[in-house]
Amino acid sequence: MDSAVVLAQDFDFDAWQRVQRDEVEDCLSRWVSPEAPAGLGEAMRYAVLDGGKRLRPLLVLAASEAVGGLREAALRGACAAELIHAYSLVHDDMPCMDNDVLRRGKPTVHVQFGEAEALLAGDALQALAFELLTPETGVPAAMQATLCRMLARAAGADGMAGGQAIDLASVGKMLTEDQLRRMHRLKTGALLRACVVMGAACADAAEDAREALAEYGAAIGLAFQVVDDILDVIADSATLGKTAGKDAASDKPTYVSLLGLEPAQRYAEELREAAHAALARSGLSDTRALAALADAVVRRSH
Amino acid sequence: MDSAVVLAQDFDFDAWQRVQRDEVEDCLSRWVSPEAPAGLGEAMRYAVLDGGKRLRPLLVLAASEAVGGLREAALRGACAAELIHAYSLVHDDMPCMDNDVLRRGKPTVHVQFGEAEALLAGDALQALAFELLTPETGVPAAMQATLCRMLARAAGADGMAGGQAIDLASVGKMLTEDQLRRMHRLKTGALLRACVVMGAACADAAEDAREALAEYGAAIGLAFQVVDDILDVIADSATLGKTAGKDAASDKPTYVSLLGLEPAQRYAEELREAAHAALARSGLSDTRALAALADAVVRRSH
Repeated sequence: MDSAVVLAQDFDFDAWQRVQRDEVEDCLSRWVSPEAPAGLGEAMRYAVLDGGKRLRPLLVLAASEAVGGLREAALRGACAAELIHAYSLVHDDMPCMDNDVLRRGKPTVHVQFGEAEALLAGDALQALAFELLTPETGVPAAMQATLCRMLARAAGADGMAGGQAIDLASVGKMLTEDQLRRMHRLKTGALLRACVVMGAACADAAEDAREALAEYGAAIGLAFQVVDDILDVIADSATLGKTAGKDAASDKPTYVSLLGLEPAQRYAEELREAAHAALARSGLSDTRALAALADAVVRRSH
Repeated sequence: MDSAVVLAQDFDFDAWQRVQRDEVEDCLSRWVSPEAPAGLGEAMRYAVLDGGKRLRPLLVLAASEAVGGLREAALRGACAAELIHAYSLVHDDMPCMDNDVLRRGKPTVHVQFGEAEALLAGDALQALAFELLTPETGVPAAMQATLCRMLARAAGADGMAGGQAIDLASVGKMLTEDQLRRMHRLKTGALLRACVVMGAACADAAEDAREALAEYGAAIGLAFQVVDDILDVIADSATLGKTAGKDAASDKPTYVSLLGLEPAQRYAEELREAAHAALARSGLSDTRALAALADAVVRRSH
């Protein structure tokens, strides 16, 4: 019997996820302090704790494990990426952006705390992400600088914020598939891909392995958005924990509106296979968590 | 004749400022790219270029010169601090915060580009600050990590964002002098102080020198806000380049409302003297630019 098959059968993805998530929740709860002044800490914790699938942290941790990375660095990277994600949701939900009142089944931050507080909580979460990446001790300085560089690029104008700007400018417009792909590569893809390369940067991984992981990250980054567009059409708000059907209602271009539902589903499956192929090319001995995460991204129901 | 006196007479602060500002403008113009997608670059440049006294960059550069710091690191630190300052103004001016329409004599970013674009431009400027601090080459990794740590702390919940949260929560309330000082120490003081310590971190300065410079930074950080409060009362909008009298109109606690005008002016002068005393203690041979900046902060008319 092939030993890789035995390994694959032995790997308990649910148990792995539970262990990682518990540690991420614990770290976030310690690092996002309730003591920030004037209710700011409360709003930041509301935005971050007890919510979400923690996909980004799981990607950082899985990639770090695959390369034998430094756990302390990976945990900081995982939480920093989640803070960037959380802040983007807080700002994205605000009245001047998507004006959404429901997120993960709870009132959004500006509904709960007010708009000004939501704006500040988002701003403070972004700063905290870079603070987490630069501790006084425990992570080599060169690794700190590399992680900061990767996260800053993924979060900024050539990444998430840039993608959101394209999104904003494209409401009510027809986009080509190339334009749509560029928007999503920046808006959600850049951060998801960054999570994987940040995890890989928690050790001195071989160039081949890092490149393969970057390709894996790009594939699942795009797959995530394709599936998001599919779920916006086929799922209901209760399952999603946010308002379903918003894309069509706000006349936003999506993979479903561009390709049709079934071709979009086939495209997601192709991207899942591309992610697996990249892992096979990586030369890394144990990429089971990353493989399972690729499957989970494409086959999720919310 | 005492050589220190000769040096002080020889120092041409105006010429020094011109040289530094020109280089900062040049760097900002190169590093804040117009090519960010969907008008985001345009909004970011509008928020950052051709405006302001560049006090924060000047503090970084002056402190770095005083310790013989690495110029490339200092320029990046200078511009990163200015980006944090610029993003905070963009967000602060938004309707859900101060709702201001005039800044540096121009329409504010949300008036010019729309609220959503202003929100995103601010977010992207913060990310860019940390990207500037972490170049692939040219600055040692340990220095990059240190600069990121200092800036992240100064910008976040225990710094600028936290101070803004206190400010927001204190409208219409009486604050004690201690509470007011804490608010300003975070809201404007933390970033100004960080500029000085970031400049000092561009070289391996002696512990004594770094401590003295941190004290200098704290003193001028507070002085800056005291003078801001004074100017809000005694200057007009045309001189300030922003709406004067806003603090009183919005019932915000200020040093003038708390101490009275003349005691506030005396307090600013005491802080200026404290800044000079810290420089004298630093053991550094040439702190003329820092000394002149302390004077400029207190004696400015806008």
